Amino acid sequence: MQERDIEKLINKRISTRGFLDKPVSQADLEKLMQLATRAPSWKNAQSYKLVFLTGDKKDQLLAEFKTEIEKRTEPRPHYDYETSHPSSIKKRMFKLGMDLYSHMGIDRKDKEGREAHFMRNYEAFGAPVVGFFYIPQALGAWTLMDLGILIGYLSLVAEGMGMATCFQASLAVYPDIVDRYTNMEGEGMKMIVGMSLGYADPNDQNNSFYSSRVPLEDVMQVL
Amino acid sequence: MQERDIEKLINKRISTRGFLDKPVSQADLEKLMQLATRAPSWKNAQSYKLVFLTGDKKDQLLAEFKTEIEKRTEPRPHYDYETSHPSSIKKRMFKLGMDLYSHMGIDRKDKEGREAHFMRNYEAFGAPVVGFFYIPQALGAWTLMDLGILIGYLSLVAEGMGMATCFQASLAVYPDIVDRYTNMEGEGMKMIVGMSLGYADPNDQNNSFYSSRVPLEDVMQVL
Repeated sequence: MQERDIEKLINKRISTRGFLDKPVSQADLEKLMQLATRAPSWKNAQSYKLVFLTGDKKDQLLAEFKTEIEKRTEPRPHYDYETSHPSSIKKRMFKLGMDLYSHMGIDRKDKEGREAHFMRNYEAFGAPVVGFFYIPQALGAWTLMDLGILIGYLSLVAEGMGMATCFQASLAVYPDIVDRYTNMEGEGMKMIVGMSLGYADPNDQNNSFYSSRVPLEDVMQVL
Repeated sequence: MQERDIEKLINKRISTRGFLDKPVSQADLEKLMQLATRAPSWKNAQSYKLVFLTGDKKDQLLAEFKTEIEKRTEPRPHYDYETSHPSSIKKRMFKLGMDLYSHMGIDRKDKEGREAHFMRNYEAFGAPVVGFFYIPQALGAWTLMDLGILIGYLSLVAEGMGMATCFQASLAVYPDIVDRYTNMEGEGMKMIVGMSLGYADPNDQNNSFYSSRVPLEDVMQVL
C-alpha cells in the first residue's frame, strides 16, 4: 500500500539522486500528468508542455550531454542561471552543497570528488525517464510561476504513486540539444528545466540526505 | 476528520471564490508554511517571502484597492500581465471566463454583471486572510518557478488542513499600495501575486464551479 497522506508525502519527498533500473509505464506517466495538470494556472491557460524521454532516446541524449560536458563546452541555457542572490540567500545555497558533500563523505577540498558527484546529474542519476518542461517563448514571469505550480503538484503526485523526482537546472544546460530529441525545434517553445523521474534506490546513500530549511520567520510574516 | 489523501485533495482544490467569515489562527498559518516550505527550490535558496495580512490591515488594504478600481486607475503590476499567448491558449482562457459566467448565470453580454462578479476579487471573496508573494527584485525566471512550486505545495497543504485558496493576479494590480501594508517598501523585493485564504463557503455558488483541463496530449508527450 502506497503512502497517500499529504503531510507524509511532503516530508518524504527529497531531490532523489539515485534511481532503480525499473521502467515507468506510459499509463503511469499519463496518470501522473492527469493529476498534476489539476494545478491552477493563469486564467486556466495551462501554457506548458512536458516532454518525457525514455529508453534509447533518453540514453542518447544523456550521452550527448556527457560529451559536451567533457569538452567543457560553455553552458547555454535558455534562461540564464541566476547569480544575483542577496548574500543571506547565497549562504543557504552554499550550505546545501556543504551539507550534501559532507553527507556523502566528500571533502570540501576534494574538487575531483565533488565534480564526479555532480556529473551524476548528467546521467539523470540512473532514472528511467527524463522530462523537459517548456513554455511559449513569448511568455514570461506569470507563465514561469504557473509552470512551478505544475512542478509542485507533479513532485507530490509522483511520491503518492511510489515514484521519486529530481528537478535539475543542470539538464537545461544545452537546450538546443534537448530540442532535437523532443522535436521542439522551431515550435516557438523554450525549455527551462529538466527532471529525472523513476523509483528511488533505497540503498543509494544520496537518498538518505535530507536538506534543511530556513527558520519560518525568514520567509513569512503575519501582520 | 479532514481529507488527507493526495489524489482527493487535488481533485477537491478549486479557485475558491467565496469564504466563510471564520478566522485562521497564527498557529495554522505557521503550520501551513512549515509544510509548504518543504517545496524544493534552486539550490535550496528559498528566495521568497510571503506576507499575510489579516483583520483591520487586510480590510484597509482592500478598501484602498476598491477606491483605486472605482477611480479606474491604470493597473501597475510589477510583472506586466501577459497577453502574447498563442491563439490555442487564448481560447482556453476565454473558455474559463465563459464557463464560469455561465455557471453563475451571468449572460456573456451582461457587462455590468460580469464586472460586479469580477469586483469580488478585490474583496478577497470575503477571505479572512490575504497573502502576498515576494521575490528579490534582482532575480528572475528560476526564482519565479521556485515561487510557483511553493504555491503548488501551499495550495494542497491548505486543502489538507480543511482550508481553501484563490491565487489572484488581480491582487497584484497596485503593488506599491500593498508594499505599504506589508512593510516591504525599500526592501529590494518585488511582489508578484496575491492569495485569498480561509475556509470555503459551501453555500456559495462560485464554489461548485469546477474548471476543465485540456486533453493530456496537448500538454505532454512521451518519446
